[in-house]
Amino acid sequence: MLAEIITIGDEILIGQIVDTNSAWMATELNKIGLRVKQITSVSDDREHILKALSEAAGRADVIFITGGLGPTKDDITKKTLAEYFGVGFVENKDALTNVERIFAKYNRPLLEVNRQQALVPANCEVVLNQNGTAPGMWFNHNGVIYMSMPGVPFEMMYMMEGQVIPKLKATLKLPVIIHKTLLTVGEGESFLAERIADIENDLPPYIKLAYLPKPGQVRLRLSAFGEDENVLQAQVDIFAARFIDRIGSPFVIDQDIPLEKAILDKMESRGLTLSVAESCTGGYLSHLFTQHAGSSLVFLGGAVSYSYELKESILGVRNETLWQHGAVSEETVKEMVEGALLNFKSDLAVAITGVAGPGGGTEDKPVGTVWIAVAGKQKTVIKKYTFDGKRRQNIERSAVMALAMLNNLLAEIDK
Amino acid sequence: MLAEIITIGDEILIGQIVDTNSAWMATELNKIGLRVKQITSVSDDREHILKALSEAAGRADVIFITGGLGPTKDDITKKTLAEYFGVGFVENKDALTNVERIFAKYNRPLLEVNRQQALVPANCEVVLNQNGTAPGMWFNHNGVIYMSMPGVPFEMMYMMEGQVIPKLKATLKLPVIIHKTLLTVGEGESFLAERIADIENDLPPYIKLAYLPKPGQVRLRLSAFGEDENVLQAQVDIFAARFIDRIGSPFVIDQDIPLEKAILDKMESRGLTLSVAESCTGGYLSHLFTQHAGSSLVFLGGAVSYSYELKESILGVRNETLWQHGAVSEETVKEMVEGALLNFKSDLAVAITGVAGPGGGTEDKPVGTVWIAVAGKQKTVIKKYTFDGKRRQNIERSAVMALAMLNNLLAEIDK
Repeated sequence: MLAEIITIGDEILIGQIVDTNSAWMATELNKIGLRVKQITSVSDDREHILKALSEAAGRADVIFITGGLGPTKDDITKKTLAEYFGVGFVENKDALTNVERIFAKYNRPLLEVNRQQALVPANCEVVLNQNGTAPGMWFNHNGVIYMSMPGVPFEMMYMMEGQVIPKLKATLKLPVIIHKTLLTVGEGESFLAERIADIENDLPPYIKLAYLPKPGQVRLRLSAFGEDENVLQAQVDIFAARFIDRIGSPFVIDQDIPLEKAILDKMESRGLTLSVAESCTGGYLSHLFTQHAGSSLVFLGGAVSYSYELKESILGVRNETLWQHGAVSEETVKEMVEGALLNFKSDLAVAITGVAGPGGGTEDKPVGTVWIAVAGKQKTVIKKYTFDGKRRQNIERSAVMALAMLNNLLAEIDK
Repeated sequence: MLAEIITIGDEILIGQIVDTNSAWMATELNKIGLRVKQITSVSDDREHILKALSEAAGRADVIFITGGLGPTKDDITKKTLAEYFGVGFVENKDALTNVERIFAKYNRPLLEVNRQQALVPANCEVVLNQNGTAPGMWFNHNGVIYMSMPGVPFEMMYMMEGQVIPKLKATLKLPVIIHKTLLTVGEGESFLAERIADIENDLPPYIKLAYLPKPGQVRLRLSAFGEDENVLQAQVDIFAARFIDRIGSPFVIDQDIPLEKAILDKMESRGLTLSVAESCTGGYLSHLFTQHAGSSLVFLGGAVSYSYELKESILGVRNETLWQHGAVSEETVKEMVEGALLNFKSDLAVAITGVAGPGGGTEDKPVGTVWIAVAGKQKTVIKKYTFDGKRRQNIERSAVMALAMLNNLLAEIDK
């Protein structure tokens, strides 16, 4: 089964917004066995939209259309869909109730232009939008399904998760698909591939292995396609166990979640707390942790100690250490992590200090030189890295490697 | 002049990566007067690529193609382009020297598969890739320009900035375009539009005004199209001055830079330093500042005080205040900002405490309740906000409003 995505609206074509919707939709569609054949972004232009629709209908079984459903005159998706299908408009009662509900909630007057949000092409089935006024519209035309949704990401996402995906599963004869993702950190894609090559060769044709690399981490995604869910699940579990056993310490968790969330979960289940002392990452590591709901059960906080003075006053790094060895040194990072443990009273701590660039590099400490320390009460591990990226890449890499070290420390103190 | 972008590769279609390249390219192309008509993402499939190329050639003057230039067998862009143009391959000497240079730099053996990176379709003009082994390829075929580039963002960006954009300007008869962006913060798009409607009506037809909203901020972009650069610049400057005068305090800077960078620049020029005390934003505000090169001249650092204990120990918030008024209160945020000023010895400080959600809300302090304080030696400003977003939106909104308050404080102590 093939799908296509058409995004409508000038915002993407002038570069004002990045099309994150399509990647999210593609991921979700892949999970249910709908492969995306093409993604097309077109302008708010009648002819252009009509052409894109008919081209997509020649290639795909399901077409997802986002955007162009707002109440203003440059939003022409609905009108153009009606023209494409050759139908008129009807007022949908449920959609109108929904518009009225939302305007009542915010105490705003309901204008005629807002009422018109409830007008839909006569051949559509309305998919309610719980988070906005533009209804979703499902069409079944000449054997192709068209699903039109708002371009606002969270409106589209709720609609997809709550209604569209279940409806697709019920309507289409999709294969049973089982996914399992193994998160690994600190080992390169090709090195990892070499180490597990023989197990990969053993995979039956109905189980595929995909390598999904990100800086410092690789996700291994096993996908099994077939008819009997239990059989597939059992097979995937057996292979996952073999991969995990072989991979060893770079393996973090058999769930498709971010690395820092996996660490938070592990620490929460063991009742451990964490604090950080960040210099060159400047708050980015703290932000990674605290973006997750419930992180406060583990993460106590920390210092963003950019200046020498704050390294001394908040973390208790000795003035002598800073002047003798510099802020970017093994000695300083050691005192930073020990200071965090002591002053912030956490079970574990992470400290990072380095030269993110583009300025600040010297011959013996070039841009990209980063010292990272992780420590618990009994053990401190310190490593030096030399990244060769630009400022933001160096910051991200530093945070990922700190997470990898923290994950290893957790595994060790587990024993 | 119309352009199209074709991205080639399964990574985008399975949702593994978000297509940030296209938005970046669209922005840059718009700046030189090339409007993007369509963006198409297709798979690594010969027929599909050929079809996308010929369709795009029917609509656009310039076609940008990214991706599919790697050395592995699923990278078929180059082969498919040669087929499309009906030409064979030649080895390009400069491209080969470049490949050899990169392999020598990293001390890796040069395999035959890598040498082949220097083979290009006979009708192309090579655009050197200083950051990778795959050369860029410029074709001029039946009056349409095709520019093929690697999909790795920084390779593509350097190639575009350093070589492709200048070459496009030299080759095509592009209109002269002058842009000026006015950054405003803290005032909604429609309210702003109403306030400047009469000036907008005065704009001559060759100057367009675009509203580019982001959470908490709106950029106004003036674009003038014509033939005489000096005349256009003078006209744009006159209108920009009128808009700035009318907008008043929400106006931040007449440059297209991020809000926090504008603040860092203003503070640096006045020799002022900054520290922060973050609770619910959990390091995000610090990260916004420190992602910019040179931020250490202004930003001393700060505390991510998630727990009560850290609010007391690092910031000196009184235990009594926390228990009596709660962590999310006017009293606490006041002591946080004062503690930051005192302990971190900065000229200005920002403090944020709130309920980011999804948990932690109560009847009188629901999720989205955020207290923000900004302070200098003579003045402290405290405000309460009630955002109604999800966790990440609440974090981002809090940071933006803190920046808006800081910008206002800076304007006041300027007087």
